[in-house]
Amino acid sequence: MEDNKRYESGIHVMEELFSEEVRNGMAGMKNISPDFWEMIVSFGFGDLYGRNTLSHAQREVITLTTLITQGAFDQLKVHLRAALNVGLSKEEIIELIMHCAGYVGFPKAVQAMGIAGEIFKETEVTK
Amino acid sequence: MEDNKRYESGIHVMEELFSEEVRNGMAGMKNISPDFWEMIVSFGFGDLYGRNTLSHAQREVITLTTLITQGAFDQLKVHLRAALNVGLSKEEIIELIMHCAGYVGFPKAVQAMGIAGEIFKETEVTK
Amino acid sequence: MEDNKRYESGIHVMEELFSEEVRNGMAGMKNISPDFWEMIVSFGFGDLYGRNTLSHAQREVITLTTLITQGAFDQLKVHLRAALNVGLSKEEIIELIMHCAGYVGFPKAVQAMGIAGEIFKETEVTK
Amino acid sequence: MEDNKRYESGIHVMEELFSEEVRNGMAGMKNISPDFWEMIVSFGFGDLYGRNTLSHAQREVITLTTLITQGAFDQLKVHLRAALNVGLSKEEIIELIMHCAGYVGFPKAVQAMGIAGEIFKETEVTK
Amino acid sequence: MEDNKRYESGIHVMEELFSEEVRNGMAGMKNISPDFWEMIVSFGFGDLYGRNTLSHAQREVITLTTLITQGAFDQLKVHLRAALNVGLSKEEIIELIMHCAGYVGFPKAVQAMGIAGEIFKETEVTK
Amino acid sequence: MEDNKRYESGIHVMEELFSEEVRNGMAGMKNISPDFWEMIVSFGFGDLYGRNTLSHAQREVITLTTLITQGAFDQLKVHLRAALNVGLSKEEIIELIMHCAGYVGFPKAVQAMGIAGEIFKETEVTK
Repeated sequence: MEDNKRYESGIHVMEELFSEEVRNGMAGMKNISPDFWEMIVSFGFGDLYGRNTLSHAQREVITLTTLITQGAFDQLKVHLRAALNVGLSKEEIIELIMHCAGYVGFPKAVQAMGIAGEIFKETEVTK
Repeated sequence: MEDNKRYESGIHVMEELFSEEVRNGMAGMKNISPDFWEMIVSFGFGDLYGRNTLSHAQREVITLTTLITQGAFDQLKVHLRAALNVGLSKEEIIELIMHCAGYVGFPKAVQAMGIAGEIFKETEVTK
Repeated sequence: MEDNKRYESGIHVMEELFSEEVRNGMAGMKNISPDFWEMIVSFGFGDLYGRNTLSHAQREVITLTTLITQGAFDQLKVHLRAALNVGLSKEEIIELIMHCAGYVGFPKAVQAMGIAGEIFKETEVTK
Repeated sequence: MEDNKRYESGIHVMEELFSEEVRNGMAGMKNISPDFWEMIVSFGFGDLYGRNTLSHAQREVITLTTLITQGAFDQLKVHLRAALNVGLSKEEIIELIMHCAGYVGFPKAVQAMGIAGEIFKETEVTK
Repeated sequence: MEDNKRYESGIHVMEELFSEEVRNGMAGMKNISPDFWEMIVSFGFGDLYGRNTLSHAQREVITLTTLITQGAFDQLKVHLRAALNVGLSKEEIIELIMHCAGYVGFPKAVQAMGIAGEIFKETEVTK
Repeated sequence: MEDNKRYESGIHVMEELFSEEVRNGMAGMKNISPDFWEMIVSFGFGDLYGRNTLSHAQREVITLTTLITQGAFDQLKVHLRAALNVGLSKEEIIELIMHCAGYVGFPKAVQAMGIAGEIFKETEVTK
């Protein structure tokens, strides 16, 4: 595959995961490093999310879990919205976080659940 | 629920996840701390895996992801076998690890893939 | 023990650790997931802090140390207040953070000490 | 070497790394724990940065990398400014963060790049 | 304090924490880097363990907790022996690890408990 | 750039970093997942190490630092050899690890230094 196609595939994935507003925010990265932006789109979304075998929803389960484990809570907000966009239910997300409590400890799970609560409220308001 | 039932529920889950050999190995914990053994069974398996909303296979996706992210590779071996037992395919596990490469970095993903390769080979032999 | 008693034991522990204001803040979790709230109280406080062998003050030494090591600084604030409530002195907390500097590195220790400074000031004002 | 000299050496290093404003902010630590402040200066800067074999710029490459890997983003801000002060270029810092993407995963690299963008903008304004 | 005294203080602390066999093993570091060996002794043991306010036993509680949280299991073995040497009981160590289960997750706690079991057995044999 | 070229660029970088023996070991990954092998070569080595602005030696400083911080000690062995291959001296590597002691804590630095000692001895023998 040419780099061109990898980038296009990544942009396509991002449209499925994120709202236009979120994508515009992300694209601010272009001003800091156009090369890094290209890498995020082509590799992070094109090469990884663009693959088969796992659905976008299954990939978000993996992404949410690793972000909670790493304590990467700013990124968690973005991917909680993506998870809802690709069809995970609130109940499944809550259950995922509870499962994490036993595996990464309560401090990170509690923080994740608090953030999930905010995102859930926000999505209700915009409905 | 009485503690008795939580423990029984945990034992039941463990029978679904692990072979008898693995369970016997785990039960060695009883000799070090019977209370901790009880907690692992009742909370770790009874309270968490025993819940609804997510299937055992979905829970193993979460467990594998957090173990890779933490670099907990000894535990990963046990849960790779459990993942296969509850119906995840080799292709899905490989795909999960590749997805992790972008989110936790290649060093841990490479190590996880090497371990997965060993477990896959082992399960072929025992067939 | 019945679940009922585990929950009651957890609530009792929380009254010893946290001010009413902090407990009310924590209870907001009920609105996001009543099951997770139940788990936090029954397991996190009832099953763990409710055990013998170690005092609440000794348990807070463990909790503070793991939170600093994980970089879980939001949770650290809550448990610094709890540590003071169950009898750890400011001098002991400062000493704990200095010890951590050698074991988890200065970046996390410096951040923890800054937060401890804020909590110490806050508790002086309320006196 | 006497402790006196270790402290003086540390203060000297800090003058090379940080602006007066940043150093004054750091010195607030004296009010929380004078002993910890002494340890930061004498050990963290005197004993470590004061050594030979690696330049200050090379040491900042190490420091930035470990801070990104740990997710210690508050400390990262301080050391991004120090890195620029001791001669690392923006291009080198961007390249370092991109390299980290493959080794610690994109979530932390993306967050680090966003912070670097802010620091770069800030240093342009003050020129 | 002169560096000489910091080193002597560190050696003195190490004699209280570790058996002669363990100390001889550690001293192999001198062959790789005499400067790093000096830093371990003077800073790691002299400056940190040599301070007041917390007892050696309390410091080992902190050290064990951070090692479990970091997954630094090779170092954990050494400090489990040290913890027993300075007066922590097996019951207290088991309780510490159980407390960690809730705060760092079961995978690391389970691994730590297994290692503690080995160390306990080993110390019984040498009695 | 076509994928073909990214892969070739990655293979070229790997020849500069690793001995033939190490590369053959790595290529075992092809048997587990040919796609992951392609990703490691094309992205991990082609896209990242193949870029300009930082030399291979500077990139190994970053790689060693993040591996020590993550506690990824199996990967550390491979990259310590690579670091020596691309021109870092033993003195620089020792200094890097000592610097890390202050930033990630002594446990991981001590373990890294022990491993470095083994690799240094091994390279002396093969001379």
